[in-house]
Amino acid sequence: MSDVVAIDLNSDLGEGYGVWRVGDDPAILQVVTSANIACGFHAGDPSILRATCTEAINRGVAIGAHVSYPDLAGFGRRHIRMEPTELRDAVLYQLGALDAFAQVARSEVAYLKPHGALYHAAASDRAIAEAVVDAAAEYDPSLAILGAPKSALIAAADKAGLESVPEAFVDRAYLPDGGLVSRQEPNSVLSDPEEIASRAVRLAVDNEVVAIDGSILTIEARSLCLHGDTPGAVSIAQAVRAALDEAGVGVYRFTS
Amino acid sequence: MSDVVAIDLNSDLGEGYGVWRVGDDPAILQVVTSANIACGFHAGDPSILRATCTEAINRGVAIGAHVSYPDLAGFGRRHIRMEPTELRDAVLYQLGALDAFAQVARSEVAYLKPHGALYHAAASDRAIAEAVVDAAAEYDPSLAILGAPKSALIAAADKAGLESVPEAFVDRAYLPDGGLVSRQEPNSVLSDPEEIASRAVRLAVDNEVVAIDGSILTIEARSLCLHGDTPGAVSIAQAVRAALDEAGVGVYRFTS
Amino acid sequence: MSDVVAIDLNSDLGEGYGVWRVGDDPAILQVVTSANIACGFHAGDPSILRATCTEAINRGVAIGAHVSYPDLAGFGRRHIRMEPTELRDAVLYQLGALDAFAQVARSEVAYLKPHGALYHAAASDRAIAEAVVDAAAEYDPSLAILGAPKSALIAAADKAGLESVPEAFVDRAYLPDGGLVSRQEPNSVLSDPEEIASRAVRLAVDNEVVAIDGSILTIEARSLCLHGDTPGAVSIAQAVRAALDEAGVGVYRFTS
Amino acid sequence: MSDVVAIDLNSDLGEGYGVWRVGDDPAILQVVTSANIACGFHAGDPSILRATCTEAINRGVAIGAHVSYPDLAGFGRRHIRMEPTELRDAVLYQLGALDAFAQVARSEVAYLKPHGALYHAAASDRAIAEAVVDAAAEYDPSLAILGAPKSALIAAADKAGLESVPEAFVDRAYLPDGGLVSRQEPNSVLSDPEEIASRAVRLAVDNEVVAIDGSILTIEARSLCLHGDTPGAVSIAQAVRAALDEAGVGVYRFTS
Repeated sequence: MSDVVAIDLNSDLGEGYGVWRVGDDPAILQVVTSANIACGFHAGDPSILRATCTEAINRGVAIGAHVSYPDLAGFGRRHIRMEPTELRDAVLYQLGALDAFAQVARSEVAYLKPHGALYHAAASDRAIAEAVVDAAAEYDPSLAILGAPKSALIAAADKAGLESVPEAFVDRAYLPDGGLVSRQEPNSVLSDPEEIASRAVRLAVDNEVVAIDGSILTIEARSLCLHGDTPGAVSIAQAVRAALDEAGVGVYRFTS
Repeated sequence: MSDVVAIDLNSDLGEGYGVWRVGDDPAILQVVTSANIACGFHAGDPSILRATCTEAINRGVAIGAHVSYPDLAGFGRRHIRMEPTELRDAVLYQLGALDAFAQVARSEVAYLKPHGALYHAAASDRAIAEAVVDAAAEYDPSLAILGAPKSALIAAADKAGLESVPEAFVDRAYLPDGGLVSRQEPNSVLSDPEEIASRAVRLAVDNEVVAIDGSILTIEARSLCLHGDTPGAVSIAQAVRAALDEAGVGVYRFTS
Repeated sequence: MSDVVAIDLNSDLGEGYGVWRVGDDPAILQVVTSANIACGFHAGDPSILRATCTEAINRGVAIGAHVSYPDLAGFGRRHIRMEPTELRDAVLYQLGALDAFAQVARSEVAYLKPHGALYHAAASDRAIAEAVVDAAAEYDPSLAILGAPKSALIAAADKAGLESVPEAFVDRAYLPDGGLVSRQEPNSVLSDPEEIASRAVRLAVDNEVVAIDGSILTIEARSLCLHGDTPGAVSIAQAVRAALDEAGVGVYRFTS
Repeated sequence: MSDVVAIDLNSDLGEGYGVWRVGDDPAILQVVTSANIACGFHAGDPSILRATCTEAINRGVAIGAHVSYPDLAGFGRRHIRMEPTELRDAVLYQLGALDAFAQVARSEVAYLKPHGALYHAAASDRAIAEAVVDAAAEYDPSLAILGAPKSALIAAADKAGLESVPEAFVDRAYLPDGGLVSRQEPNSVLSDPEEIASRAVRLAVDNEVVAIDGSILTIEARSLCLHGDTPGAVSIAQAVRAALDEAGVGVYRFTS
């Protein structure tokens, strides 16, 4: 354990569209330090982008572009086989659109995190990871890339000279190899706020998490992902934040 | 007639989507000095935005955001009754998206021009004009606004302290009051390249155009709009450019 | 009061899209007799269409096509100036799509009701009303048209020989001339279940409603519209249904 | 060679959207007997659906639903990983929408053919093939299914008791195993009208085609696919039709 321990908390925000809403953004924004904001391709219309950017900035929360495949009907959860150049351009389009709202609120997009199916594809497929990173690198080389530890995305960010930020999931069960237990499996998602909070503290302080078979994994995460759209999400997020505060862990945005 | 006469030529570009294409962009880009580039709401997917920005910048042509109502199926030609704040946000979204492609090509969006139904609405409706100008002003106060002379849009730009650039149409018949003859009327659109070219020269040099009733109108235009999507559009554009060159009119982008 | 009094209850259903949901459809389906089902243009993806049709048919609830302008981002609440032929075709597209799901559930679309901005436009604009009715008439002349009493839509349906069904709103304040008090005005929307229930009974039994100025209006409604997406909507719907049952009013679908 | 030889000719039609157009539909409709009509998911807005259905019916051409993944920007050429039930519902939505226009033109959809990426996926993936066939079977068991010979789609249609119609491509080079030479390979697409026409006749009369290695393949095709969107497409289509007519091959729609 280092002398000073710090961690970032990130969550998906602005995931409504038109009249539709998901999650309790104001409550989550009181807990997290980094906001993954939907950019219009899986959720988020222009007015929601503005409102979410403004609220995040007012609370000192860093703005991340939560970029997605173009898939409103599937909420970005369906893989779309796009050419790498098409994908790069789709990511750049979203980055620019979101950054406009960040800029008019006197801030800027600080990092990029792929959403849904693109998150998973960019974790395992090098060409997809590089397409995503290329868009970020050509737009602003000071952008950080948030993704799964040891993923193709993190590797692509490192290769391109961008800051890479690995994250862990506080409410998901881990396999012994560091992968996540599939949501189709029983006990894949944790729901007890106290248990999740103690996992968060252990991840932040010791970089460890207990896998589903009882083995202890080392995960070098600089950010912890909190879900905002599940039942009890707000209670869990608040419990995590309270436990980290109580344990003396500094909860800071990873971006300057 | 002033000692040094100069004019800008603008045209709509990048108006394809996916597999679909409109007009001969490379040919038009050899003639014009300002490119009104579709931003994805009436036309233009991300890869078309990139290609059009890159081609325009390579030819030294200024990049304008051709912003629209969200209406792919109607090509932005259908009026949509949006709240002013919704419209402002939709315009800002498009501005940011296009600017990302301009920036990665080492340039930037230099001006904004509303497209289609939004062009007409912003010409006559003050709230709509102000919503459009607000988006530009908050994004970048150095953006110019291109629109119809004496329109609500030009007035809103002036009021907000943005550079306003009135334009004239070289191939459209004018009413004695300075309005355009409706496309539903006979002889509303000119097609003879030589006639159009001589109108362009007279507009550039003398700020005059002969209206449909034979009366002479004064139009203080700093840019002339050339259409790129009609039969013969390229021939007309080339004839206009050649006539202006021959008349000693400097054809320069209005933006620096 | 006639010997046998009967009324239909209709409500908007299937108004989600992708991951997003609105209202408590199962609860509302236990109360109403006619379901206005979103057809994909303002809400409703194909799988939601199927689920909603199936649930409605299982409960013996009539299926209506809740047709809209193409406007997911605006939930169909923004007027779009479409050509009448374009609008007719857009309505027919939605009718056919919904009917496919009704048919595979061994039923069929029984009526059409315009949604949102199209409801209002079709109430006051004859060309729009006729475009909507034309689509219904050419698809299936046995379709009924549900709309505001004395509206252009009802007139167009009558003229085309389609069954027209005027409806009243149980939770909206009425002007002395029979129009609705604008939602922008105070007291435009009622929220007390008992008050709303007693208005419903009076509308069903006596065809009367007390306007906002205390005057008594006669409204010949064959269906009462219940909202499903407001707080307390389910309680209100249940109170209305219970009051009608208790008053001996037959609650039947207006379609056979 | 049988005493009476007959073949169907099919082509993709109605592939525009809004202002955008692809191909010369009227010319192709004079040649083919079956029209694969885009249903709005990869191309085709409601008014184009109407116009294309009407023109096809006026020429006695059978109407097929050319169903696609939801992908306007990618023209349906990008694979989207949808759940089978989602895909089935998306296909049913398109079937119903197109059938509405066929019905108001006093005809009906006679067959279904998947488009683009869905065509390829349904040829090789059993779950996808069954999802497509399920939609057709539940909508109308008299629908025929048009697809690649020996494909998973044809097998699924046979299993479901639907009429299956294998097709051949007259302008594509074949591999010795009956597969198509990839478009990325040289000589994968033929362009000489006379050569294509003679291949068409041989396919129709002898069920044979010469593969790229000179070997002779047997292909039991009941329909030949003509492309409408390539340069020279109309000339090729006309040459094929003329050669079939001259060879005494009956060119009839495969559907009654």
